[in-house]
Amino acid sequence: MEDPQHKGYREKGLEVLKRYGVKVWSDVKIETTKGSFEGLILPRSSTEDACHIVIKMKSGYNTGIHVGNITHIRQVGYREGKYKIPEKEFPKNPKKPNVTLLGTGGTIASRLDYTTGAVIPAFSPGELYGAVPELADVCNLTTRKLFGVFSENMGPSQYKELAQEIGKEIGNGAHGIVIGHGTDTMHHTASILSFMVQDSPVPIILVGSQRSSDRPSSDAARNLLNATFAAAHSDIAEVMVCMFGPTSDDYDLLHPGTRVRKMHSSYRSTFRTIGEIPIAMIWPDRVVPLRSYKQRRKDTNVKIDAVYEEKVAILYYYPNMLPDMVDSLVDNGYKGIVIAGTGLGHVNYALNPSLKRAIEKGVAVVMTVQTLWGYVHMNVYDTGRYLLELGVIPCENMLPETAYMKLCWVLGHTTDLEEVRKMMLMPIAGEITPREPHNGYLIYQGGIPEVERFLATYKK
Amino acid sequence: MEDPQHKGYREKGLEVLKRYGVKVWSDVKIETTKGSFEGLILPRSSTEDACHIVIKMKSGYNTGIHVGNITHIRQVGYREGKYKIPEKEFPKNPKKPNVTLLGTGGTIASRLDYTTGAVIPAFSPGELYGAVPELADVCNLTTRKLFGVFSENMGPSQYKELAQEIGKEIGNGAHGIVIGHGTDTMHHTASILSFMVQDSPVPIILVGSQRSSDRPSSDAARNLLNATFAAAHSDIAEVMVCMFGPTSDDYDLLHPGTRVRKMHSSYRSTFRTIGEIPIAMIWPDRVVPLRSYKQRRKDTNVKIDAVYEEKVAILYYYPNMLPDMVDSLVDNGYKGIVIAGTGLGHVNYALNPSLKRAIEKGVAVVMTVQTLWGYVHMNVYDTGRYLLELGVIPCENMLPETAYMKLCWVLGHTTDLEEVRKMMLMPIAGEITPREPHNGYLIYQGGIPEVERFLATYKK
Repeated sequence: MEDPQHKGYREKGLEVLKRYGVKVWSDVKIETTKGSFEGLILPRSSTEDACHIVIKMKSGYNTGIHVGNITHIRQVGYREGKYKIPEKEFPKNPKKPNVTLLGTGGTIASRLDYTTGAVIPAFSPGELYGAVPELADVCNLTTRKLFGVFSENMGPSQYKELAQEIGKEIGNGAHGIVIGHGTDTMHHTASILSFMVQDSPVPIILVGSQRSSDRPSSDAARNLLNATFAAAHSDIAEVMVCMFGPTSDDYDLLHPGTRVRKMHSSYRSTFRTIGEIPIAMIWPDRVVPLRSYKQRRKDTNVKIDAVYEEKVAILYYYPNMLPDMVDSLVDNGYKGIVIAGTGLGHVNYALNPSLKRAIEKGVAVVMTVQTLWGYVHMNVYDTGRYLLELGVIPCENMLPETAYMKLCWVLGHTTDLEEVRKMMLMPIAGEITPREPHNGYLIYQGGIPEVERFLATYKK
Repeated sequence: MEDPQHKGYREKGLEVLKRYGVKVWSDVKIETTKGSFEGLILPRSSTEDACHIVIKMKSGYNTGIHVGNITHIRQVGYREGKYKIPEKEFPKNPKKPNVTLLGTGGTIASRLDYTTGAVIPAFSPGELYGAVPELADVCNLTTRKLFGVFSENMGPSQYKELAQEIGKEIGNGAHGIVIGHGTDTMHHTASILSFMVQDSPVPIILVGSQRSSDRPSSDAARNLLNATFAAAHSDIAEVMVCMFGPTSDDYDLLHPGTRVRKMHSSYRSTFRTIGEIPIAMIWPDRVVPLRSYKQRRKDTNVKIDAVYEEKVAILYYYPNMLPDMVDSLVDNGYKGIVIAGTGLGHVNYALNPSLKRAIEKGVAVVMTVQTLWGYVHMNVYDTGRYLLELGVIPCENMLPETAYMKLCWVLGHTTDLEEVRKMMLMPIAGEITPREPHNGYLIYQGGIPEVERFLATYKK
């Protein structure tokens, strides 16, 4: 029987709450060996670990405090959170496009309970309408929760199911698909879906938030609204990520699924298109394309090709990498290795015999650059030429993450190394581009007044 | 006996040159199964591979053509390269500072032979004076070639020797140290030297070039001149990287040794300070600091602490990473694992038992973020809390490459996991900083006129 006053706490955590006579929704001051913390004790789910008390601090951040460090807890108040969003029926308008929101886990949008600061996740159309009423101006919304996992736990079974479900929704006439996703591996999912779902007639847009909806700076509602608008109304029929654009609070960007990467652990503007410019800028009522794209069609035809080989690894090169790093992969039955090499696509010469053996045993070895920006060019130096000679496949400007996802997908089709080479080097979804635009590379922001004054006056 | 007409060619390569009656410095048109190439046949060193003919194309790029693909070679001219730089004695001026240039491999500067387009490497003070005469205005230069390796082959023995030699040069009164280095792993070497060479009284500056000196756009002479100026005259006594700054042709930047990373495989502006602003901007006659730094001292005391544990690996997380990736490291005797996790420092739950076993066996496991920008925050989600519980060490905003180098160095001192934790989390050389400045994050360059017009007029 669950104890609602200590919802989700058990063993040591429960013991500590009871010892100090506090419960869920108690406003507390917790003294620990690492300093003191103030906040509201939040309920937990019973699958969570047993040795942390989780509080919402005044900053809006949740933090877990290990019970082993707690020396005292003092209750200073009590503010119960409500766990029910008033559902309003989502209005249906036959003139508006139909958008399907597929949930994979994580909070897509939520209603802030200002009394407690608690997050109340919203997912059904009615709940979302309650939380973000502007959604009803944009489309008719259908929601389906496919799974509930942290994005770092997304894997092949989820990718395959997601691809199949997208296929069904498009076949049933959805005008656009939005996928709610945790941000950690959103770019990986966008990448694999770019290969598993081909020639979509409608936009397929992954969206998430970097700050939960109970924080004033949350990007959740805005990202969701922008993503839904793009799914319903934009002409861009590609797999994309819709997230916060600049570091200032302005627009969102639509990033191409195979050229996007999470570049900051906490900023809202974390997703960046790499080696290309984003596809479009987006406001809640307007999409401004920045370059050419695949256009929306009126048919409902889409090709779902949901295959995946699991025995593939990324080998991220570092100096003095020892040959056992490659040998273990071969001995453990890996079918593919994506090297993220230095510079133009290099590793140290000590790895050569092991890479030779790997390829001789039929392992597909492909090269990408760990600089992230730029192209593999393995014919410039002897190091690279030797690797080419061995049969390492140079993946042009494919991101290591994208090459990983593509290789998993390609090896799901064939293990013939010549076929693998052909498929890896044949661009399918923008993963290889002929050139990097001049403004596709990150720049240093500057903004130091002394330097700007100096630059303005300095004679070279 | 070396054959000067076919310098460096042997076996198949030599055979093909002789078959078509061409030699080194022949201007040729080579027909291959992959298209035709025009250029000048370059000499090679005898250690290079035997199956490529290397030509300098009109673009300035060198390219290696595999003999197996060659269907015909036609000679269209002959332009012999000179292999001797006119050496001029480097002027000594007792009033100028003494700078030591240590060579590790790669071309630091060279003289362009316009007749042939050949690169003639310059290294002795006399040669460098011939190639970059402005160096004599800056300092008295001493050069010592320590080794000649491609930077991807730099490893512990080179790091230790380099640290020791830097110590000797500083002890002998050098006013600054410049280290010529290939760019692939320049940031790794800068990072390990930041730990091996502590409290230097003088600047220690790594420098290289992204474009060889025979190309009109080369950054070689300029980077060298800037690095030498900073070593001789700047007040900044840290380990730094001096390379091309913005994407336009303007200034160089001095990057902190532990927060710099190569971010583009071919651009000259490839090095970027991550999560911090660069230490200074630099022109050939002026250094403009952008923030505080360790100041130059008049003494010759420096602490050399050149230890290194080789059994350390970076585990770059990707979705569905299988537990054998961790198990193999433990079974192969690794002492340290640097995880480059997703988001705030996460991996999938399937790895938890293997990570638990690793730590129980005494392996130091540390967490960094693969976003590169931002901090590890493992107390926000259950995934992270569980890893903390196991004993994973959260490395704040240390770059994965820097955490790798620091862990190699720390494990050279102790294998006691509590000591390792203390040392990893104690900032030594700027590898952990309390906060990321607002302008320490990359931005999207924009520069699309339609969008700028739109932004100027759009009412939100």
